[in-house]
Formats: sequence, C-alpha cells, structure tokens
Amino acid sequence: MTPQETPMDWGTRYAARMAGMKASEIRELLKLLDQPDIISFAGGIPDPALFPQAEIAQTYAQICGDRALFDAALQYSVSEGDAGLRQWIVSYMAKRGVTCGPENILITNGSQQALEFLGRMFLSPKDTAMVEAPTYLGALQAFSAMEPVYDTLPNGATNRTVASYRDKAGAAGGVLKFAYVVPDFANPTGHTLNIEERRELLQFASDLNIPVIEDSPYVALRYDGQEVPMLQALDCEDQGGIESSRVISLGSFSKVFTPGLRVGWICAPTEVIGKLTLMKQASDLSNSAINQRVIATLATTRFDQQVAQGIAHYRVKRDAMLDALERHMPDGVTWSKPEGGLFIWVTLPEGLDATALLQQAVEQARVAYVPGHAFFADGSGRNTLRLSFSLPSVDAIEDGIAKLGALLKKATG
Amino acid sequence: MTPQETPMDWGTRYAARMAGMKASEIRELLKLLDQPDIISFAGGIPDPALFPQAEIAQTYAQICGDRALFDAALQYSVSEGDAGLRQWIVSYMAKRGVTCGPENILITNGSQQALEFLGRMFLSPKDTAMVEAPTYLGALQAFSAMEPVYDTLPNGATNRTVASYRDKAGAAGGVLKFAYVVPDFANPTGHTLNIEERRELLQFASDLNIPVIEDSPYVALRYDGQEVPMLQALDCEDQGGIESSRVISLGSFSKVFTPGLRVGWICAPTEVIGKLTLMKQASDLSNSAINQRVIATLATTRFDQQVAQGIAHYRVKRDAMLDALERHMPDGVTWSKPEGGLFIWVTLPEGLDATALLQQAVEQARVAYVPGHAFFADGSGRNTLRLSFSLPSVDAIEDGIAKLGALLKKATG
Repeated sequence: MTPQETPMDWGTRYAARMAGMKASEIRELLKLLDQPDIISFAGGIPDPALFPQAEIAQTYAQICGDRALFDAALQYSVSEGDAGLRQWIVSYMAKRGVTCGPENILITNGSQQALEFLGRMFLSPKDTAMVEAPTYLGALQAFSAMEPVYDTLPNGATNRTVASYRDKAGAAGGVLKFAYVVPDFANPTGHTLNIEERRELLQFASDLNIPVIEDSPYVALRYDGQEVPMLQALDCEDQGGIESSRVISLGSFSKVFTPGLRVGWICAPTEVIGKLTLMKQASDLSNSAINQRVIATLATTRFDQQVAQGIAHYRVKRDAMLDALERHMPDGVTWSKPEGGLFIWVTLPEGLDATALLQQAVEQARVAYVPGHAFFADGSGRNTLRLSFSLPSVDAIEDGIAKLGALLKKATG
Repeated sequence: MTPQETPMDWGTRYAARMAGMKASEIRELLKLLDQPDIISFAGGIPDPALFPQAEIAQTYAQICGDRALFDAALQYSVSEGDAGLRQWIVSYMAKRGVTCGPENILITNGSQQALEFLGRMFLSPKDTAMVEAPTYLGALQAFSAMEPVYDTLPNGATNRTVASYRDKAGAAGGVLKFAYVVPDFANPTGHTLNIEERRELLQFASDLNIPVIEDSPYVALRYDGQEVPMLQALDCEDQGGIESSRVISLGSFSKVFTPGLRVGWICAPTEVIGKLTLMKQASDLSNSAINQRVIATLATTRFDQQVAQGIAHYRVKRDAMLDALERHMPDGVTWSKPEGGLFIWVTLPEGLDATALLQQAVEQARVAYVPGHAFFADGSGRNTLRLSFSLPSVDAIEDGIAKLGALLKKATG
C-alpha cells in the first residue's frame, strides 16, 4: 500500500446533519474560568456538599457484598431501565398528580439524553421546535443536531394568530413539531409558569395540535411559594389519562442526589416510550445497572429527606444572592426572584453587552457568569446574564456580587 | 380546555428517520427464552463469575471513603472522558501498535454508543454503509436509524470492480460512507481476518477512499493462534500516524471486566474525536464519572490478570462446545473454529430454516440459540445460527449440544 498524499478529508465524509453541530462558545469559555481565585456564578451544577456520601458508600458496599445483587448490577440490563427504579418513579409521579405505570417510564443518561432522543424522534430537518426565549442551552444543543428551525413560544399575550405559527413553520420548509418548556425555576431565568400560564400553554399546544415537552429537573427544589401542578398533571386530568395526553415530561436525579450516576427519566404515553426504548437500545443498550440500583436505593430510602436538605441549603444561598444584588447593583439593573432552582437572571440597561463585560469581570473583578445571549435561539439578549448561587459559599456570594456591582456601576456610570 | 375526541396520533408527529427504527425480532424473541430450565446458547454476554467482585467493592470503598475523590466522582464531568482512563487507553493502544494521545480518545457508553455516534456522524439518508455478511446485529440497529442502505464487503476474491461499489451507492441515492468490520473473533461468526485479508480490506477502503470502522470488543480474548495486528495499527504504519489514518477503532471494557459500568472508547484522528466530543456533549453530557474511575482503577491494576483469567475460563468452554459439536452434529452441519471471543457459527444443510427450528429447539429440546439471518443486512442466511459458549457450564454445553444434535439429526434425516 502506498501512503496517501494528504490525510483524509473528513469534512467531506460527514452526514449533512453535522453542519448543525457546533462547539458552544459558552461551554468553551467556561473552561477558561476554572481558576481557583475566580468566584464563579457561571456553573449550574449541584453543590457536592449535599451528595450523601455515607449512604452512597453503604449502598455500593451492600450491592458489592451480595454476589447475586452484584452479578446483576454489573451485567447488561434491560433498555427500559431498572424495574424497581421505574416503580419508584411511578409512585413519585403519582404524588405530582400524574397517574402512570412502569410502561410510561424510560430511564435515560440524565435529562440531556432525553432531550437528544426527543429531538431525534420528532425533528426532521427544517421542522420547527417551539422554545422559550431564553431557554435551556443544552436543549438547543440537542435539538440543533437535527437541523430544525426555532420559533418562540408566546409569553402571555401575543398578537400572533395560531395560523401564523403554522405558516411560519411551513415557510421554513417543515412543520411545527413540539413546544419545549422548563416550567419550574427555569434554566436560565429562574422563572416559574403560574397556573394560568400553564393552561394557556396547553391551550396553545392543543390549538396547534403539537406535543409539549416538560423539562423539570429542578421541580423538587422549591424554597418558597405555592407548588404549581405539572403541565403533565393538568393535561392528564383534561384528557382523561396519560395515554391521551400530549405532554412528555422529563425528570432527573442529578439536582437532588448526584449527576455523577447519570440517571434521568422520560414519562410519556406507552406508544412514545415504546419507540424511545428502541432508540435507547440502538443508542447505548441501557443505562449502567449498578448506577440505577444505587439511585433506586437512595430514592426509596431518603428522597424526601434529601430534598429537604437541598431546599434548606440552597434557600440560604439564594437569599444571600438576592440580598447582595439589592445592595450592590446600580440603578437600571434588574433581576429575577426565583422561588426555587439554581439560577437568577439579570437584565442590564439596554446597550450594555454582557459578553463584552465578561472579560473585564474575569480579569478585573475575578468574577464569572454566563452571558445571556447563549440561551436565545436567535442570539438576542446581549444585555442579559445568568448567575448561579448553587456552588459558592454565602461569603463568596456577597464578595462576588459586590465586585460585580462595582464593575457594573463603572459600566453604567 | 375541552378533552380531545381522540388521543394524539403520535405516528404522524415523528421525524422521517423513525421509520427505520424497528423492534429487533431476535431481541424480542430472546426475552421469551429467559426460562430457568432452558440451556441458552443465545446470549452473548460475559460470564459474571469473572466479574472481579472484591476488587470492584474495594475500588468503590476507596472512592467513597475520600471526600475529594468522592465529590469529583459524583459530579458532572468532561465530555471527553476521565483523563486517567484516557491515558491508560493510550498506553493500551500503544501495545496494540497504535501510537496516539489522549486527544485521540473519546469515552462512550459502551461500544453501542460509539456505533450510534458514528452512524449519526457519517450517514445521511440513502448513503451506503459497507458491512460484512453476516455482521453485528447491534451495528445494524445503530446504523439503520439513520436510514442508510447496505452493501456487502468483499470476502476474499470478488468479481466486482471498485467502480461497481460506487455506482451501486449512487444508484441508491447517496454515497459510500464507510466500511464496518469486527476483525477479531467476530460477532456472530467467530471469524478473524488474517493479515492478508486485513491488507486487502485497507486497500479496498483506500481505493474507495472511505473510512474503516474497526470494532474490537473481543480482541483481548484470544485462546490460541497468533495475534494479528489491528487494522488501525497497519494503517497508522502505512499512513505515517493516526492523524493521517482512515481507521476509527472501537474498544470496550464490557467483555474483559464488566458491561454494567457502560464504558467503551473510540480511537480516531483528533478532527474526528473533536466532532464526536460535541456529539457526546449534546447527547448525554458525559459518561458516569464514578464508573470511569472504577474502570480506570481496574485497568491500571489488573487488566492483564483479568484478561488471563478470562482466556483460561472461556477457552475451556469453547473447547467443550467444539468437542460436543464434533460428537453430536449430524453430517452436513458445519461450524466455525474461533480462536477467541464468545461465538461459534453453525451452518445447516441448505433448505433448513434455523428460525423455524428454534421453536422446536426450545419446546422439545429446551435449548436456545440465535437464528443467523438476523445478522444479515439483506435477511439471508436462513440456514445459519449463532451459538455462544460464554455463559453455560461445561456440563450444560455438553448436554445442550447433544440435545440440539439430536433435533438436527431428526430434521436432516
């Protein structure tokens, strides 16, 4: 064999869909912020201080100490997911107002895999996905790999007709495929849809006759205010049960217990779960069996306790950040007051650019955040930014917000 | 909101690609065979007796007993995969003749995720994937979700010209995208490509200017005969290094250590790994961090020892099955003599149908196998079947093959 003149030209070999797969400039940027003397409000990850170390150690020891349990936990397992874990999720969903059975549950590698599966299941190239503006960055990444276009969900009153949404999707070369929302303590805004907004959204989806994807990784972490019923619970009630519902809900153990075991789930009508199970089998056979066993044990023995600890822990940090913002932000800067979750959304005066300011924030103030425009499908929102209070200490929150406030005073002054 | 007259018609909502996603009749069938009094040669899973229980228990205890290790192992982690694990794989690949760096390695949820990623990366609808006949069923499932067509790799002499392959792909509406092979102890045939066959395959891929996907989950499990260099090692040598090579290789810890942690890898040029890392991020963020830590520890401390135990264990079973086949099979039945792996491929006299016979085998002889036609992209091979010797005991192998032989004697007589 003779050597080739030039290396393979891989770019010409890829499928057309690869053009939609681009590095997230934000995720690249975040790598640069991983320096010990920077106070980072940029992440959105749970505080490891809450990971239940003793209980996880004990669960592993239990599984590894029983040869039959161990053999099953280290072997290949079914694509649908661990039967005991799915049964626990069924009982959890019942508490949230969704009556379903194990046949309505598929275990996924965290919610990110659920988003990727649903994008792949529904979106042909040029189809339209309806998303909030702003919306979760990871959802945009998962969906964009399927070459869709995006349209924006109405937020309260809209002067657009139902037909105008359908026409816009047709003009883009496809059809409307689904509405995607994070209804509780949204990433990035912290916003929660109230009951009227939820009913409006379901009516909108009914008018357009499209499924609704309800992404609820933070729903258990409510620090104050009244719980609002899940979209899926409302729709099951309206439609007479989950099999007739248009809502597909996503849950995750990452924010309550730990993201390191990669366990999330999809709850949907049997027909949808059947298709998704085939996708799971072709995609990676199944989740790790031992990880599912560990999560099932934790969920069964201490879910409520873990949630209570998380709420107490994060509430203090959220309060510290809201308090610091109140004292340190200059006039013209506004922010959300989330009732739960991990995020606060800051809006700067028009004309300020949070991306441009980030470099100064990091270099001069040693404070980091995520510029908001990454969360807009259309790249707008230049004057917005996302803060997370989950990881820094209360002292670091005070210190960092004071420094950020001083920087913004200079910028707005 | 008024209830809908009828449930959502989900079928009309799916993306076009979902038409290619069908339940594997074989996998559905296998579920029915899971009865305790059936001797099953149908699986292809490792023997859990080989899972290193004490060492895995100890590794978990170690990680869970050190707060810093624990916190990192239970947190979100990088999409590329655990740095220590990737470094170990680099040293392993060097022993197999492939000089590479961590930038050439991506960790995946077992090889199945690697297959799905590569299908998604290369195959636009109607593109052609070149596969062996028969080939690995899971690869066909992963690729078929991307709506390709298949053509068959030449096996030794062929009277087809290079142009004829290209023309056939063009007539199907796409282009040739890659060749996929399991060169060592293939699933399902147990066949290993010799050095001449490997050079012919690389020449064929070079003539067509297509990438080669080398799937090597069993390569370490060689029971006798001479090791043959990996396709990737040969091509790196010919092309002057991995960055110029057309070969993408897949590895897995599932067959050597345990499938329950879902850890495999892709080794490829940096450009390809870069794209695949974006796909990993959008697909499920990363593998489980703790599972990667456990595998990294096992690999570093006892890979060679574990391989030696696996070889000793499976060699006895392979010998028992080959010996039993020799004594119990009627004239006209032939089978492969694999030098490693988990499978033996049986060819029945023309006209016999292994799928039709399976029902009798299960009901009368209480013996199960996988009908061979599932492994052919074109559904041929009705008179073939796959036996696995990995799970049953030596006694059960003798008993089961004797019963299968008696059944086949009746069928051929």
